Amino acid sequence: MEITRTHTRTEVRLAGEGGQGMILAGIILAEAAAIYDGMQVVQSQSYGPEARGGASKSEVIISNERIDFPEVIDADILITLSQEAYNKFAPEFKKDGTLIVDADNVAEVSRPDAIRLPITSISRETTGRAITANTVALGILVGLTGIVSKEAISKAIAARAPKGTEEINHAALEAGFEAAKKVKEGTI
Amino acid sequence: MEITRTHTRTEVRLAGEGGQGMILAGIILAEAAAIYDGMQVVQSQSYGPEARGGASKSEVIISNERIDFPEVIDADILITLSQEAYNKFAPEFKKDGTLIVDADNVAEVSRPDAIRLPITSISRETTGRAITANTVALGILVGLTGIVSKEAISKAIAARAPKGTEEINHAALEAGFEAAKKVKEGTI
Repeated sequence: MEITRTHTRTEVRLAGEGGQGMILAGIILAEAAAIYDGMQVVQSQSYGPEARGGASKSEVIISNERIDFPEVIDADILITLSQEAYNKFAPEFKKDGTLIVDADNVAEVSRPDAIRLPITSISRETTGRAITANTVALGILVGLTGIVSKEAISKAIAARAPKGTEEINHAALEAGFEAAKKVKEGTI
Repeated sequence: MEITRTHTRTEVRLAGEGGQGMILAGIILAEAAAIYDGMQVVQSQSYGPEARGGASKSEVIISNERIDFPEVIDADILITLSQEAYNKFAPEFKKDGTLIVDADNVAEVSRPDAIRLPITSISRETTGRAITANTVALGILVGLTGIVSKEAISKAIAARAPKGTEEINHAALEAGFEAAKKVKEGTI
């Protein structure tokens, strides 16, 4: 009998403007996968000449085996919280990937397969603040793709949330899960 | 007349235990270099099977040109805040590099070229807290190597410091600069 072990490598790109917390979101996703789900992970950000412009991009590669090539080759999941980020990454994004867009900040969406959700509005309605939009985005991402367990992302957020923001971040995550559920049911 | 442009690539590794803030320190150093000093930067962390053990490692590559190979090949600067991190990375660290060690947490230091400073004690004496040791470490690193400008690291810390901790982080950074100055003068 032959036992085959499946190699699973998933590449995630999170992009937005500086201040939207995409780098922290990438680290939280990486820690959820590595520390709480036991996967191997590389998380990175590259800053080029556009760094002053405020564009912000975070990449997470998650695998059940050693990651030999630590760069995103062809992202499987893309989340964009700004028009600039959408314009930069969405056109080349793979057809059968999961493309999540913050409809509040991305007005022009060319791709019909984009999942458009008012991420910033959901954040404001849930916590009274726009700054938890990155946590809402993580909830949507995990709810839709299952790339890490809900328990793992919840623990990773609790560990990284600034003191005093644990509750609102937990609420933001749950709101993201809820939005993902509605997308799956076709009720949003 | 021929104009030659020097390619400068510097590789930094920051390592410690989980909770010592080495990942955040890496991001702050990266943002200082990219956003405030106009360099090209790749910042990353890899989590292997040891992620649950609490080891934490952050890598920053800083260059004045496009970074084609985004992994640390042979670190130029290494800072270790735990014995485990020291044992893992110091033995192979290059001879003419800058090796900074937290003497409070690393008791056994085999290399005579290591710069041993009581980083956690300096943090506690300055801010009353051990959690700002990562900011002290950044001050020492920048003060000793000049890899980014003091202004850049100061701005990057101010931008990333959790609300309400701006003052203690500023004080921790200055304490790091001061310790580096004493090392250079030979008075510590």
